[in-house]
Order: sequence, then structure tokens, then C-alpha cells
Amino acid sequence: MRIAIVLFDGAEELDWAGPWEVLAAWARMWPDDGVEVYTVADSTEPITCAKGLRVLPDHSWESAPAPDVVVWPGGRGTRAQLGDESVRERVRSLAATGALMTSVCTGSTVYADAGLLDGRPATTYWGSLETLAGLGNDIRVDGESRFVDDGDVITAAGVSAGIDMALHLVRRLHSLERAREVRRYIQYDPEPPV
Amino acid sequence: MRIAIVLFDGAEELDWAGPWEVLAAWARMWPDDGVEVYTVADSTEPITCAKGLRVLPDHSWESAPAPDVVVWPGGRGTRAQLGDESVRERVRSLAATGALMTSVCTGSTVYADAGLLDGRPATTYWGSLETLAGLGNDIRVDGESRFVDDGDVITAAGVSAGIDMALHLVRRLHSLERAREVRRYIQYDPEPPV
Repeated sequence: MRIAIVLFDGAEELDWAGPWEVLAAWARMWPDDGVEVYTVADSTEPITCAKGLRVLPDHSWESAPAPDVVVWPGGRGTRAQLGDESVRERVRSLAATGALMTSVCTGSTVYADAGLLDGRPATTYWGSLETLAGLGNDIRVDGESRFVDDGDVITAAGVSAGIDMALHLVRRLHSLERAREVRRYIQYDPEPPV
Repeated sequence: MRIAIVLFDGAEELDWAGPWEVLAAWARMWPDDGVEVYTVADSTEPITCAKGLRVLPDHSWESAPAPDVVVWPGGRGTRAQLGDESVRERVRSLAATGALMTSVCTGSTVYADAGLLDGRPATTYWGSLETLAGLGNDIRVDGESRFVDDGDVITAAGVSAGIDMALHLVRRLHSLERAREVRRYIQYDPEPPV
């Protein structure tokens, strides 16, 4: 089970770091589950994220092993991806391999722009619900759910929602028990103080 | 207002990435608040985090501007910091400048080892409560709270608790309104699905 977390300039940090923590903790703490998580980008040069964090991707698309699961984060970097034929082709070819396509925040607008969400229910960042509705064809925008699992595509709401979506992924791909163990490992008993 | 987020090999990713998202979003989206957030490490060479993520620090300790707030994450990398006189001196000298010292997860064990938590209430990762109790002198270990604000030192529970602690910081350092705005920005309406 290979899980690719996509990085690009302007990716919102917690969009990918939340799923990274959940999924990489699963992979590292339960090695017998046979999970591998890696980051992938256009090249292995440093990525500058939306709020300025600089990260080194594990792989370029050329060097990356074929993923079984893709996590596409959001962030202002997705704006440049909309309408970009090379990005559309990347998304479509990944989906065509049968990879489970997941997104966080405005990552779903990139999937929508590639036609991946046509006729499907999907969600996105609260501030981008209208943008999502204007992309693709007949996307049933869900502004209430924390994430929407539509089988081979799962879209999450904004930023921190990637943590919830990733725990759902652990449950779906392994078991409720393992997902609870990972939740316990990251002490995810949130108490927003404000 | 300068906020330093400390990085080191073996730092747990979400321990620092959660506060980074909250605090850097505050800094970038409300520039008139005059907040600067940066990462700092022993050098600016790439850091390899606990689950394998590689990050480029913004500053070395030599080049970093003096911080008003310090965020020390946890992770297995903290084990090597316990008993290290250079780390103890770093922690004590930062505290001596009057910086607000905050920690996430086992970052508090590093503070405890430097004597910063003597006679104080403090928390840490659920799996390290006994370790914390065995460090320093008369630390009143709080295994229930999501974070413990003891004035010039704030300690948070494990991993994801850094997000809650950071939102508390925004409230304390600015206002309830701003903290709620940042919470909204990161769509932090958690719904753990398992």
C-alpha cells in the first residue's frame, strides 16, 4: 500500500501535514501493515508552502513508485493548477491507474478541473464552495460534511479536515481498531479553546 | 512579536506543523498584527523529522532574531536532548530573556530537564506523563488538560494538542476575536471519525 502526498509551491501546510502525520504514523508504528507514505512533487527541489515553510519532497513524479492512494492538498498554489493541461493529465492518469484519489481543502478544485468530480458529491474549503460548484459538470457540492467518501474519490473540507479524512482512510484501508490506535497515538482529542 | 518554532532531527511532524499553521496563518493573513513566525534549528541544513519528513529551517540559532515566544515540539528526537547541557543552556537562556516558553508533546520533558518546570503544573504526551514526573523537582503533572498555561510557560499534551495550544496563544497574545478568525481560517471544526 503506497500513499503519495502531493506537494507544490503554495500548498497549505496543514492540508498535507495533517494527513502526513496520521498516515506516516500508521506506516511507521505498524510496519507489518505494509504501508509506505511519501511526498511527491514536480522535482525534488525544495517546495515553498503557502505560509512559507520549505520542505524537501521524497520523490519527483518520475522517480515515485506508482501510488495506491493519492492525497492532493489545497492552498493558494492550487489556483495556478486550474486550467493547466499537464496537471489535468496528471490527475486523470493517476485516477486511471485505479488509485484512490483523495483531496484536502481546495485540492478538490484541482480534481474538479480535471473532470474527476463530474456528477459526484464533493466538498472543499468553506471559502471555495462556489468555486467548486462552478467547475466540472454537475458536481453536488456538500458544504456540511467534514469529508465526502464517494468510493474511488474522497474530498475533505478545509485545512484541518485532512486529519479527520486521514483517520477515515486508515479505518477504510485497514480497520476501525487501527484507526483508533493512530488517533490515540496522535492524542487527537481536540478541544478548540476558542 | 517574533515566534520561533524549534526544529530538530526526530521532531514529531504535527507537533510543530499544527502550531506553525495556526501562528503562520495569523502572521500572514493579518499582517497589521506585526507577527513574525520562523523555524529555527542548530543549523539551516535539512532536518529529518520523526516520521521522515525533511524540512529546511529558516534560521540557525546564530542567525535567528531574538524570539518573544518559543514553541518546542516533541517527538523521539527529544530523548537525546535530555541531559544535554547545551540544550539545557539554550532553554534557560531563552527563558531568561523573558520569552514565553511553550511546548507540545514531549517538548515539555526538555523544559523539565532544564529545570524550567520545577514546582509548576505542566502536561505532556499521554505516554510520557511518568517520564515528566521523574524530571526536575516537584512538577505537578496534569494528565487531563489539553494544555496548561502557567504564565510564562505553557505546555501542551501530545501531537495534535499543539493546534489547541496555538489557538490559545493567539487569544492570549491578541484577542478572542482573532483566535476565532484563525480557527475559521483553518476550518478547525474537528470531527474525529473514529
